[in-house]
Amino acid sequence: MRAEFDRLRVVLVATRNSLNIGAAARAMSNFGFLHLRVVNPYEPSYREARSAVGAAPLLADAEQFDTVADAIADCTLVVGTTAASRRELHQPIKRLEEGARSIKHRLRSGSVALLFGSEKRGLSNDDLSHCHWLLQIPTREEHRSMNLGQAVAVCLYELARDPKAVSAKPNQEFATAGDAERIGTTLIEVLRKADYLKPPTTVSTAEKMRRTIRRLGLSPGDVRLGLGMLRQILWKIESRDDERK
Amino acid sequence: MRAEFDRLRVVLVATRNSLNIGAAARAMSNFGFLHLRVVNPYEPSYREARSAVGAAPLLADAEQFDTVADAIADCTLVVGTTAASRRELHQPIKRLEEGARSIKHRLRSGSVALLFGSEKRGLSNDDLSHCHWLLQIPTREEHRSMNLGQAVAVCLYELARDPKAVSAKPNQEFATAGDAERIGTTLIEVLRKADYLKPPTTVSTAEKMRRTIRRLGLSPGDVRLGLGMLRQILWKIESRDDERK
Repeated sequence: MRAEFDRLRVVLVATRNSLNIGAAARAMSNFGFLHLRVVNPYEPSYREARSAVGAAPLLADAEQFDTVADAIADCTLVVGTTAASRRELHQPIKRLEEGARSIKHRLRSGSVALLFGSEKRGLSNDDLSHCHWLLQIPTREEHRSMNLGQAVAVCLYELARDPKAVSAKPNQEFATAGDAERIGTTLIEVLRKADYLKPPTTVSTAEKMRRTIRRLGLSPGDVRLGLGMLRQILWKIESRDDERK
Repeated sequence: MRAEFDRLRVVLVATRNSLNIGAAARAMSNFGFLHLRVVNPYEPSYREARSAVGAAPLLADAEQFDTVADAIADCTLVVGTTAASRRELHQPIKRLEEGARSIKHRLRSGSVALLFGSEKRGLSNDDLSHCHWLLQIPTREEHRSMNLGQAVAVCLYELARDPKAVSAKPNQEFATAGDAERIGTTLIEVLRKADYLKPPTTVSTAEKMRRTIRRLGLSPGDVRLGLGMLRQILWKIESRDDERK
């Protein structure tokens, strides 16, 4: 995975805003794609972004080029991003879900350039003519155009996502059936002592209680807490009963 | 789908930065989740965000609350987002890929709140205690914490993504086998006239040419362009040959 991620080149073309350069770099660092190339950026913004806190290491290693052709020369696949709303496009367009599969496949053997255009105009027709195909994030037709930093984050997330991955931390621990049963019987005892249930307790009441407790998905800690509460309540009711005797 | 998207409540808790509020709103509009709730925002930032261009309609409809409890009261599932890096968390954690499946399932029948904390501290332990479980974006362990606007965009993209979706625009048109064959035979004729191929042309040369042309994935337009070029070259060579006779 790491070797494949190392073959992606994120290429920002003619970016104007230093916050967007910084946001793109941050998303790259978040998802583990560390190779940034900038083509013809607005110089003051680029300088400002490189001096910002947090994004420093990745931006310090960024490579700067004068032309798109130079920035992609060593890549075997060149993919442009587009909102695809404004104009006739001559390249095939793939939605991000399917396009990311093609990119991941190619990253196994060669370098891939992923191009993002300027905030205002996106990639020019000249930039696009370098691309094998175009990637479209599935935004609403009523509001196609995304913020640059968010578009970079979404594309890189799709490349990094793993549908088979399990949670980083272990999921909830569940109580054993025996623990759940102890809670149930203790609760029934409390409810009987409190005259909520009249003896003899019917089988259907116990069953209903058991189903309800199962559905709660209690943890071992919940069982300890619940049993402690119930036993104290039971003790209190019994001691009152004793006083009245 | 639209009805399900309408059941999601994006809840921003104690957000400080107006740019982040605006960015969250923009991503919501991009992916079609239009119901924003803000809890105890930093007032000047919230006012500034609401007056920004572009995000106006969604932000104008945003609901403001004093407490998390009020903001989630009508929701049947409450999910908090976390970078899960700093502290002991008591709720189950799901990675975004699996967590989004649970959220989409619940959206079929009821409202779901998706909580995002402040830029600096994320959600507090008190905020988290309202959550059924927590959602974690699968960022690198070395750089877990995402920008707020980017985190919102990535979560909503995962909810909106459709692995079976096809491209919004029709994919590339491909030339017919007959067109490709015409290019091949014309090219062979040119190469023979140019003395690149010596007659008689072997069957294996024609086969090699055919395989190469197939692999190019030409469009009908490419075939028209290519045949035009080849016929002109053929005409030129033939007319030179005629002159020399």
